[in-house]
Amino acid sequence: MHAYRTHHCGALRAADAGKTVRLSGWVHRKRDHGGLLFVDLRDHYGLTQCVVAQGSPSFATLDGARPESVVTVTGEVVPREGATINTKLPTGEIELRVAEVTVQSAAEVLPIQVAGEQEFPEDLRLRYRFIDLRRDRQHRNLMLRSAVIASIRRRMIDQGFTEFQTPILTASSPEGARDFLVPARNHPGKFYALPQAPQQFKQLAMVAGFDRYFQIAPCFRDEASRADRSPGEFYQLDFEMSFVTQEDVFAAIEPVLAGVFEEFSSFSGTKRSVTPAPFPRIPYDQSMLEFGSDKPDLRNPIRIADVTEHFAGGGFGLFARAVDKGAVVRAIPAPGAAGNPRSFFDKMNEWAREQGAGGLGYITFANGEAGGPIAKNLQPERVAAIKSACGLADGDAVFFAADKVDVAAKLAGQARTRLGNELGLIEKDSYRFCWVTDFPMYELNEDTGQIDFSHNPFSMPQGELEALNTMDPLKIKAYQYDIVCNGIELSSGAIRNHRPDVMVRAFEIAGYTAQTVEDRFGGMLNAFRYGAPPHGGSAPGIDRIVMLLADEPNIREVILFPMNQQAEDLMMGAPAPVDAARLKELSIKLDLPPPKGGAGGPKAS
Amino acid sequence: MHAYRTHHCGALRAADAGKTVRLSGWVHRKRDHGGLLFVDLRDHYGLTQCVVAQGSPSFATLDGARPESVVTVTGEVVPREGATINTKLPTGEIELRVAEVTVQSAAEVLPIQVAGEQEFPEDLRLRYRFIDLRRDRQHRNLMLRSAVIASIRRRMIDQGFTEFQTPILTASSPEGARDFLVPARNHPGKFYALPQAPQQFKQLAMVAGFDRYFQIAPCFRDEASRADRSPGEFYQLDFEMSFVTQEDVFAAIEPVLAGVFEEFSSFSGTKRSVTPAPFPRIPYDQSMLEFGSDKPDLRNPIRIADVTEHFAGGGFGLFARAVDKGAVVRAIPAPGAAGNPRSFFDKMNEWAREQGAGGLGYITFANGEAGGPIAKNLQPERVAAIKSACGLADGDAVFFAADKVDVAAKLAGQARTRLGNELGLIEKDSYRFCWVTDFPMYELNEDTGQIDFSHNPFSMPQGELEALNTMDPLKIKAYQYDIVCNGIELSSGAIRNHRPDVMVRAFEIAGYTAQTVEDRFGGMLNAFRYGAPPHGGSAPGIDRIVMLLADEPNIREVILFPMNQQAEDLMMGAPAPVDAARLKELSIKLDLPPPKGGAGGPKAS
Repeated sequence: MHAYRTHHCGALRAADAGKTVRLSGWVHRKRDHGGLLFVDLRDHYGLTQCVVAQGSPSFATLDGARPESVVTVTGEVVPREGATINTKLPTGEIELRVAEVTVQSAAEVLPIQVAGEQEFPEDLRLRYRFIDLRRDRQHRNLMLRSAVIASIRRRMIDQGFTEFQTPILTASSPEGARDFLVPARNHPGKFYALPQAPQQFKQLAMVAGFDRYFQIAPCFRDEASRADRSPGEFYQLDFEMSFVTQEDVFAAIEPVLAGVFEEFSSFSGTKRSVTPAPFPRIPYDQSMLEFGSDKPDLRNPIRIADVTEHFAGGGFGLFARAVDKGAVVRAIPAPGAAGNPRSFFDKMNEWAREQGAGGLGYITFANGEAGGPIAKNLQPERVAAIKSACGLADGDAVFFAADKVDVAAKLAGQARTRLGNELGLIEKDSYRFCWVTDFPMYELNEDTGQIDFSHNPFSMPQGELEALNTMDPLKIKAYQYDIVCNGIELSSGAIRNHRPDVMVRAFEIAGYTAQTVEDRFGGMLNAFRYGAPPHGGSAPGIDRIVMLLADEPNIREVILFPMNQQAEDLMMGAPAPVDAARLKELSIKLDLPPPKGGAGGPKAS
Repeated sequence: MHAYRTHHCGALRAADAGKTVRLSGWVHRKRDHGGLLFVDLRDHYGLTQCVVAQGSPSFATLDGARPESVVTVTGEVVPREGATINTKLPTGEIELRVAEVTVQSAAEVLPIQVAGEQEFPEDLRLRYRFIDLRRDRQHRNLMLRSAVIASIRRRMIDQGFTEFQTPILTASSPEGARDFLVPARNHPGKFYALPQAPQQFKQLAMVAGFDRYFQIAPCFRDEASRADRSPGEFYQLDFEMSFVTQEDVFAAIEPVLAGVFEEFSSFSGTKRSVTPAPFPRIPYDQSMLEFGSDKPDLRNPIRIADVTEHFAGGGFGLFARAVDKGAVVRAIPAPGAAGNPRSFFDKMNEWAREQGAGGLGYITFANGEAGGPIAKNLQPERVAAIKSACGLADGDAVFFAADKVDVAAKLAGQARTRLGNELGLIEKDSYRFCWVTDFPMYELNEDTGQIDFSHNPFSMPQGELEALNTMDPLKIKAYQYDIVCNGIELSSGAIRNHRPDVMVRAFEIAGYTAQTVEDRFGGMLNAFRYGAPPHGGSAPGIDRIVMLLADEPNIREVILFPMNQQAEDLMMGAPAPVDAARLKELSIKLDLPPPKGGAGGPKAS
């Protein structure tokens, strides 16, 4: 008989009755039923009820084993009968009558409990993550993560992609966030950087002639953590393709994402629907108008409309004057809200003021009449036009955000989300995907009056060199696209600019000289001078995908050994001080900031 | 028609004749055949011959495109006829008659050539790796690597393993090699370390209740590079299993390795045979005796024998005296070598002296007689006993290494390798696997006279606490095992010591106090106090597996973007200097060594 087990703890069934078996696992729960000790033995695969009678030599051993001790039990499988059958447990038809027990590892008193639903403080959970992970939800989340990644890999390979490992000790990248640096021992004064993303490497893989690259890629950014962003490291489904248009990129990745979400859509209990491919494409301008955001949550049925024209040149004075000064008016429909009490509308206004807005005007439509302060001051034909533009009916209401276009769009977007929630309009149990396309290449920096890149300077401008040479830069769009699910941006992607001439011109518009471009991005530019294919890709965030599927609000719940929000690994004790000798070897020394809590100014030297 | 291609460059066949198609790729070769320009167009998938006639508008464009320019060509597929059919090329039955051509990316004059077999200096290849990788061998090697890893993943998942991602920004590990350090910006004076291996994390994953973990894991060691070791980072198939004995570990991984090697055994041209599972198990002591190494190359049929007894107490004076002083004599058979000229034996002796040995005695067996200086001085019955012990026949020879056991074993092992090569005995076209088992737990440090750990202090000693308390430490074996293929160690593994009491005692024998163990390894010890399963695993090196399958002597040939031997990324320019402001932010500053080439001593201060 095997030293530890003949079966897993999830394996035994009624048909195994009569067999002598051996199981190993953790003591999940113990119940003493007067002379009989019941022990639920747990392993990765399941739970089996073991029973030992007082007086048996094993009784004292099991009785003395604290919860979470690891034991090996040997004995006969006996069928349970009648009411003792547990239909909720796959092994619930049997129990193991313990003849022999060995304690492999005795547990001390636990800092956090495994059995039961009790909540524990996060720092305790992270410090004892190796216990925390034994709990069912945590165990399931991590198994989900693994299954999701395996499924993604399989689907990417099926689509003709090849996975490569790109360097982790590399050079600083121009992505924009802070790099983590690594002193190079044999190169005093020099440092490696951890990659913020394998962006340059994947583009170089395309230049090297590999047609379809992907990688479940570890990425490193020295940024503050958020609920949906791990401090330090995270994983993305990094991919890139050669000789493709934007539509080819969409067509390649949509079945992968839709397939993965479909495959795991029942994980959180209820089956969720998934947007089938092809996903809706929403141009950036339209997204900012209709959703007040470049991350539209399509589960919310509300669509914002521009109603500036209906306030222009008269009527409701406040809005009319704003419009005259260049403001726009955005209408946020509130379906079925007309019957709500005055307090509902007042609260929306209060909320808007908390967001820094002047307030939100509104009109209600009920009993064939338009109500509210704005309606009183606006010509009926204008009210009717607004009602029609927003597709409203009797019983609905509509709110208005009037301000400079960016501000109005943002406020309208927030109001849309709030109204969707307040009115219970958000579609449940669905994963709604879309692409946001045609991001602007440039934007005006209002502080400097200069033209800056909006997003990724390495995206191909639509219209290429001709557009750069002839169009108003602020009107130029890029072949850049985001994939959004339920209002969460999963990734940003682009058709890349693979032409040195177009790149130099694109940077020139943003105020960079050709020399600066050479100095800062010479590596990529140089590679593009030896035959570069047109290429593009994207990089959906793995952790965020798993969060969505696990229905977990915090990214740490889907990471095996996460750091806390202060980027500390409480379990391993990282980061930690290092001997001066080690630093000397790396040709660095500490340069600590003055201790806090002093007078605040620098000390006299 | 698609903007870039209707087909890949490896797709077109005779059946496509008559179609108008579009291809994109790199200009691989051009040949001007008086009025006709032939262009081999290459992409990831293959090569297609394109042809354009002088006078056609496309002629000048293609004629002017340098090799490795990226072009898109459109035209009719026409069948080739008779002698113009290229049977070596999958697309060799057709060519594309170019009607239209677009240059997507013009190449400058190349620093290294893609077409042809020319060799280039390594630094040039690494600097322009994005061109180097376009060459057939390089491209194939990297595709092999990717296929090998995908196959390993599939096989591990089929075996019930689950892949997890363990942290990369973590704490210093006790593995022994140098860590790379990463300053923690928000924790002045503290550092993360990159993992030398996920050793602790995989053990913690077992403690957390995940039964079978694996990971294609990036590992980081700040060590000098070697032909088979990349500087900085490398990948291993890291795996760990709970509730297992050593044999379970072997049974789990053997089909994975044998399967992968079988799958790719024809990559380098000839089909190679692979040791079927179960692989031979060779205890460490036997391996040191028979192979003079703990990395036995089973392709070499020579087996070393101990013949000390046949020299003890007389006969050949030199060896007898050495044996009296505690030396051993190891016999290295040289099958079929008796007929070699005297110079062969002299050269072996010379070689042995170059290795620092006194020389290698030998006996030849020919025409029923034993020859050579030793035979003259040794009783015939002793000679006969040696002949029999080594399984020798007429026509064979045997060499002898006499020295202290370790020195004799090593010299005998080297002589075995040399003889195997010189005599052409090494089996060709095979992958011969074995396990080396039962490594000693401790060894005597000859300098200090103290007992040290031989290998991994965290392996479970055979006999556990009882052995530690009762046996001569130098006789205790560990549940530690190496997997070796063709004389190359693919990995070290062990059944781990999961019991704090056993661990404290094991360290005590090696001179560590319980407090020291707590201080240095408290994290793991602590975890083992809350219920730890017996567990074990191993971590075969991915890069080495791919090297073996690709039949490449240098590990850089199987890495996408490798660093050079000085741990520099010549393509990306890493490592690189960093602004003082960035260092300030990290609370460090440079502490450079004095410039070289000075007087050598420290400067007066």
